[in-house]
Amino acid sequence: MDLTAARDRAVALDDADPIGFARNRFVVPEGLVYLDGNSLGAMPRDVPGVVQDVVSRQWGQDLIGSWNTNDWWSAPVRVGALLAQLVGARDDEVLVADSTSVNLFKVLVAAARLRPDRRVLVTEPGNFPADLYITDSVAELLGLEVRRVDPLELPAAMTDDVALVSFSHVDYRTGRAHDMGAITGAVHDAGALVVWDLSHSAGVLPVDVSSCGADFAVGCTYKYLGGGPGAPAYVMAARRHHDAMQSPLAGWTGHARPFAMEDTYEPAPGIDSMRCGTPPMVSLLTMEAALSAFDGLSMADVRAKSLSLTRLFLELADESLAPLGFTTVTPRADDERGSQVSLRHGDAYGVVQALIARGVVGDFREPDLMRLGFAPLYVRHVDVVTAVAQTVAVIDAGEQSDRRYAERHPVT
Amino acid sequence: MDLTAARDRAVALDDADPIGFARNRFVVPEGLVYLDGNSLGAMPRDVPGVVQDVVSRQWGQDLIGSWNTNDWWSAPVRVGALLAQLVGARDDEVLVADSTSVNLFKVLVAAARLRPDRRVLVTEPGNFPADLYITDSVAELLGLEVRRVDPLELPAAMTDDVALVSFSHVDYRTGRAHDMGAITGAVHDAGALVVWDLSHSAGVLPVDVSSCGADFAVGCTYKYLGGGPGAPAYVMAARRHHDAMQSPLAGWTGHARPFAMEDTYEPAPGIDSMRCGTPPMVSLLTMEAALSAFDGLSMADVRAKSLSLTRLFLELADESLAPLGFTTVTPRADDERGSQVSLRHGDAYGVVQALIARGVVGDFREPDLMRLGFAPLYVRHVDVVTAVAQTVAVIDAGEQSDRRYAERHPVT
Repeated sequence: MDLTAARDRAVALDDADPIGFARNRFVVPEGLVYLDGNSLGAMPRDVPGVVQDVVSRQWGQDLIGSWNTNDWWSAPVRVGALLAQLVGARDDEVLVADSTSVNLFKVLVAAARLRPDRRVLVTEPGNFPADLYITDSVAELLGLEVRRVDPLELPAAMTDDVALVSFSHVDYRTGRAHDMGAITGAVHDAGALVVWDLSHSAGVLPVDVSSCGADFAVGCTYKYLGGGPGAPAYVMAARRHHDAMQSPLAGWTGHARPFAMEDTYEPAPGIDSMRCGTPPMVSLLTMEAALSAFDGLSMADVRAKSLSLTRLFLELADESLAPLGFTTVTPRADDERGSQVSLRHGDAYGVVQALIARGVVGDFREPDLMRLGFAPLYVRHVDVVTAVAQTVAVIDAGEQSDRRYAERHPVT
Repeated sequence: MDLTAARDRAVALDDADPIGFARNRFVVPEGLVYLDGNSLGAMPRDVPGVVQDVVSRQWGQDLIGSWNTNDWWSAPVRVGALLAQLVGARDDEVLVADSTSVNLFKVLVAAARLRPDRRVLVTEPGNFPADLYITDSVAELLGLEVRRVDPLELPAAMTDDVALVSFSHVDYRTGRAHDMGAITGAVHDAGALVVWDLSHSAGVLPVDVSSCGADFAVGCTYKYLGGGPGAPAYVMAARRHHDAMQSPLAGWTGHARPFAMEDTYEPAPGIDSMRCGTPPMVSLLTMEAALSAFDGLSMADVRAKSLSLTRLFLELADESLAPLGFTTVTPRADDERGSQVSLRHGDAYGVVQALIARGVVGDFREPDLMRLGFAPLYVRHVDVVTAVAQTVAVIDAGEQSDRRYAERHPVT
């Protein structure tokens, strides 16, 4: 199939796309093929109006009263309940707060405290750096040991000194999706607890923390969830842990009676005890508005679209990019793949920069990966074809070695 | 002086106010006397336009590239440098990040690690609850002991097992301002480190962390600094501690080479090592816009206005409110007072609610305090007179016992 035929097929796929209408819920700059929604999602159309209301009316006019009248106080649990639907949690198991790193710190300490006789924290080599660093921080504070274990070799590593296992559902570099159910089962069989990082799966994969029995989870909201730059993250704690779990960041908003201003901390019941300081309301309410882009969409449809996009890209990459030196590192089996495809190439950095100059935005990951994220709510099949065609054009023109591109700062 | 005469005097004071023009930099709802700027500052006029640009252009159009092209990446240090000017720190000593509670956690652990042979953390009874709870959390994690000491009795408490002392510059309930220089000196004489919470002083008092030799400080930006609801907080670390300090929240943005995505944490040099996860950019850039309300103002003028407002209030309260059962708990000596006045009254809760219904917004603090904050950039002397007159009217009408008010939720 040449790229002209591919484009015809892509147009047909887009015409038949059952969630094709969702693209209109986003602002996508004219002419841009945006394949970095796994790093910063595109802006939903509802956002500017809501943000204007948040600052001009809620803050500007209603002032301090907004904590009650505009229900700012309950926003972390209200928005948490929206996110719960997207990750298969119960409404009262998810809270919006802080950053992914800070939330991971909370639940790693809380989980370790639930297994006080065990001294090993398991994470994976190549986990997202934030996860690795925070895990090391927790181990240092608690005097524990970190063991880095490949998720595919997990059962053998589950010795009885393992307190918890903390993995990412989808690997941020390779795009590999792990089997949450099987891994959680193996961890539980060994008497340990599991903490999942859903940053690269929530919003594109049908995550179901309840059915797989996850103990804790954290995740980022500004990637596929489209919550806006640095939007506050979320933390999930299974209901069965609510009574015993103890956050190491006892903040005043997580107190059972925050306005009594008592001298001693008493955690609020339930997920509220994971609250810490005052949340960044403008960012949080921006994120709430952004989540409306998911209204009425089934995650099954979203996943089907995502797989259709990545499948098409893999097929075209095999035909048109493999001969140019690109190697696919993302699994080809549908159930082992998130919503991104990563290609290895010696000049990946230069290729990514040249593609950006051509209006195809992906990103580069050390040392040699071109990473393309396919956000199924606004990326079309024709965008897939354009991305492949432009990559071919970059190589044909030798732009990957152009110093103008090579000297740019990497995209965050 | 009756209240009519007081109003004439207030008008004259306002006419002569050298920073009276600053009120136009804020949106203050028509007819409202807003005396809760110590809880949530009023919105600066520049905010809506900037926020619109942040979402519609920076996020919506420039997308991921904004980390470079719109300089999102350096915003935490850029805005930190703005705040540094307001608290007397060097430009490279202040970082915007996370919440006050999370930042306090970082610096308490970092400071305790700098005094590994000492096992006592000193804080004050009646400190802001967030500070008390976080201090207790840190002690539990590190196996240390917390001692609560009244700042006025500090020197005697400085035994050689004290690692650090953590006080609030201004007490959130009484409005008492402590002598940062004297306390810091006493702490250093005993070989310990000091951590200041500037939440209730920055933006109204001429804070000078450098000249008083403070080791670390944290503070909130949504009170007198007007940064917006839950705007990210700041953390100050004196330059002399930059090499040795170690944050317990090793986040990827605080890495020496964040985009190399290395497996092992190596802290960035300087204040950047206090970064943790991705900051909430919409809230952070909103706050940056809000800080422009301080452009060109001298903190000496701001302090003079603040004292003039609180002095007038204290005088009128003595004349008109003391006979109605209100007792002043805020120090009368100028140099012992922040920018708020708190009055004790058995029906304080009902009085505050009735005042809100009359358009005078202060707040209630357990168990019996009416707390009025005088944000000198937008509160006028005539507002002081109105607040006193309306308080008299509430009592005259017996509104403090009205169930309609008594049953409301407390203002946050």
